[in-house]
Amino acid sequence: MTWSNTKNEELKARAHKVIPRGMFGHQSTGMLPDEYPQFFSRARGSRLWDVDGNEYIDMMCAYGPNLLGYGFEPVEAAAAAQAALGDAMTGPSQSIVELAEALVGMIDHADWAIFCKNGTDATTIAIVTARAQTRRRKILAATGAYHGAAPWCTPRPAGVLPEDKAHIVYYQYNDADSLEAAFKANEGDVAGVIATPFLHETFKDEADVEREFAATARQLCDKAGAMLILDEVRAGFRLARGSSWARLGVQPDLSAWGKCIANGHPISAVVGSDAARKGAESIFVTGSFWFAATPMAAGVETLRHIREGDYLERTIAAGRRLREGLQQQAAAHGFTLRQSGPVQMPMILFEDDPDFRLGYAWVTEALKRGVYLHPYHNMFFSAAHSLEDMATALAATDDAFAAVKQRKGSLEPHPVVARMFAPH
Amino acid sequence: MTWSNTKNEELKARAHKVIPRGMFGHQSTGMLPDEYPQFFSRARGSRLWDVDGNEYIDMMCAYGPNLLGYGFEPVEAAAAAQAALGDAMTGPSQSIVELAEALVGMIDHADWAIFCKNGTDATTIAIVTARAQTRRRKILAATGAYHGAAPWCTPRPAGVLPEDKAHIVYYQYNDADSLEAAFKANEGDVAGVIATPFLHETFKDEADVEREFAATARQLCDKAGAMLILDEVRAGFRLARGSSWARLGVQPDLSAWGKCIANGHPISAVVGSDAARKGAESIFVTGSFWFAATPMAAGVETLRHIREGDYLERTIAAGRRLREGLQQQAAAHGFTLRQSGPVQMPMILFEDDPDFRLGYAWVTEALKRGVYLHPYHNMFFSAAHSLEDMATALAATDDAFAAVKQRKGSLEPHPVVARMFAPH
Repeated sequence: MTWSNTKNEELKARAHKVIPRGMFGHQSTGMLPDEYPQFFSRARGSRLWDVDGNEYIDMMCAYGPNLLGYGFEPVEAAAAAQAALGDAMTGPSQSIVELAEALVGMIDHADWAIFCKNGTDATTIAIVTARAQTRRRKILAATGAYHGAAPWCTPRPAGVLPEDKAHIVYYQYNDADSLEAAFKANEGDVAGVIATPFLHETFKDEADVEREFAATARQLCDKAGAMLILDEVRAGFRLARGSSWARLGVQPDLSAWGKCIANGHPISAVVGSDAARKGAESIFVTGSFWFAATPMAAGVETLRHIREGDYLERTIAAGRRLREGLQQQAAAHGFTLRQSGPVQMPMILFEDDPDFRLGYAWVTEALKRGVYLHPYHNMFFSAAHSLEDMATALAATDDAFAAVKQRKGSLEPHPVVARMFAPH
Repeated sequence: MTWSNTKNEELKARAHKVIPRGMFGHQSTGMLPDEYPQFFSRARGSRLWDVDGNEYIDMMCAYGPNLLGYGFEPVEAAAAAQAALGDAMTGPSQSIVELAEALVGMIDHADWAIFCKNGTDATTIAIVTARAQTRRRKILAATGAYHGAAPWCTPRPAGVLPEDKAHIVYYQYNDADSLEAAFKANEGDVAGVIATPFLHETFKDEADVEREFAATARQLCDKAGAMLILDEVRAGFRLARGSSWARLGVQPDLSAWGKCIANGHPISAVVGSDAARKGAESIFVTGSFWFAATPMAAGVETLRHIREGDYLERTIAAGRRLREGLQQQAAAHGFTLRQSGPVQMPMILFEDDPDFRLGYAWVTEALKRGVYLHPYHNMFFSAAHSLEDMATALAATDDAFAAVKQRKGSLEPHPVVARMFAPH
């Protein structure tokens, strides 16, 4: 079938009337190449279909929620069985206890759990808990790190007041000296340090956490009586079957989880050690659907597959196959790729591509050949991404490299991106 | 079957180990009578079953989300059909456009919609939009009103900093003078006024909004160039098939919706007029599951039933039957009830019951007879609450009045509530 986007364009026109800018948030295609579909009709395993019926191997996995494959049967069966009994009721079901027990069993530092809906809920509850526990104000966060879209952390300033971020202090990720300086400048007032398991920012190479940095963060928190908070919303269970920093021997006091913990069903969580329990007991946080049973039943089943299945090895194998294949292809076509981060959560950028025009052209050519890549955000693979899928994808990306090579002289940058990276 | 709570107590013991205080948020039974079950196994129509198998006529409707009846087939069928295709995907489905079009069609002041998950998301986006639109700081909110559980609005101070509420200014609900004074004291800096459609606070009689107050709020906003925000999360579509203030001829600029708009499926929304569109276009708000298709398909179907069905008349008829029946029963047993608010969202309190011991005893006796009432929160009825259900409930409440009359001399207040209302 030839790629087309008639229906998508019709829907975009309708959307522009009743949705600000036609779409909001991280799933807006406003900063993606024009050809990227805004609307999808179906997803299964590793595949995604847009409203025009174009099929893609989906390298985004819903920006994280899809871990075991879209429509993974055992999880869907557990969800459907619970939904038939009851979802949002006048109180929680037994599954809230089972899900809390499962997380506490899997995550070394976890003694308790609170469930919520958004990743932002989880990171916000974590910092509020740290403040309640320590009776201090300052939260140290890495410059440029994404921890959600509430006023204290949203990356865009519109509608946000200075007071919303008044007690957020910034350090440089992987720079222990900058963290120490932030502690020193706020002595006696540091409630907590928040960090992602590794550096995963848009438009940037990813970077692993340095063991020394993580260990220093733990020591500085211990010395000051502050809480170490790990923001696992994006990376959680994609690097390990428990805390992402367990391999470093560094235990946080609190961690925020979300996205994939129920394989796409809407739920997020904060877990904490007993060192943070009093704080957690003292705060009031809630939401209309936070006690709903269906996502919890899905979560219990998802966590069982995380513990017992080979999803992690499968995503790593798929990611490695793609990385190696792309490296060879790029070289053969005369390009240099910068592939950074864990192979199963990669960022793929082009060398010598300051306004991203090469990357944008390449993902567009791949898109039209049935592969949904992202030009500025880290990608995610699921357990349904087979080596055969990656071979199919690589055939498309090879053609995409060839097409970009031909068009190279006439490429233009995406206007929004060009403005972002224009010299001031 | 005799009422029992063995399984519930076992689960509570397990929960206390892995969940702070054993439960968090508005569905914690920590402030309810000891006999109130914390965990439920099933819900259908107007009925709810706890984990011990006790069946209740549920007068809470999941604290609002259940509007058409638990497990209402047409909505569940729409949700299941969408879930089989895809829920959380790499972009939204066509249903996000259909749902936005439906809300814009039903709510007079709405020109656009943004979807989110929590009621707190919706109220927070509304105030951030008002600030972005006006480039001002102050939000005027009614003292004691509940607008969610984020730091700017949560009713409990633990973990919250003065800066979180630095630009929230309080007025008295239904007191136009206090609102005018708040405008005057913050001249040139008022971004918006937020108000619920009527007064619905815990432990208090409800009160209808006064037409004069609503009209003054609109005039003051117009004069100052501020945004009027209606928080419809709890009351929306329970008073009318559109904006709750349409009958007053008062149009807000922004309104926040949630709970029942997808009959229990997790979704909330902000809608606004074109006067607030630029603000909405400029902010960055998002969430992992905000674009998921299943709750949107459920929402489209729910809104269709709201427009075309008789749910509103049914909930009003059921509420009226209960109110009239209780009034007669109370008088016959020598009690005076204070039944306030719309009959379909009532608050039921006892006269001469300063520490709520009468109310707590009465709802406990009713609970053991199969009726789940609430002693300090407004209740909600669904379209599945038939007149027969209310007759059944009234038989139980009659016996409950008789039982309380007998035990009246030996009642004690709930310890948490006693502390709340103790003279300082």
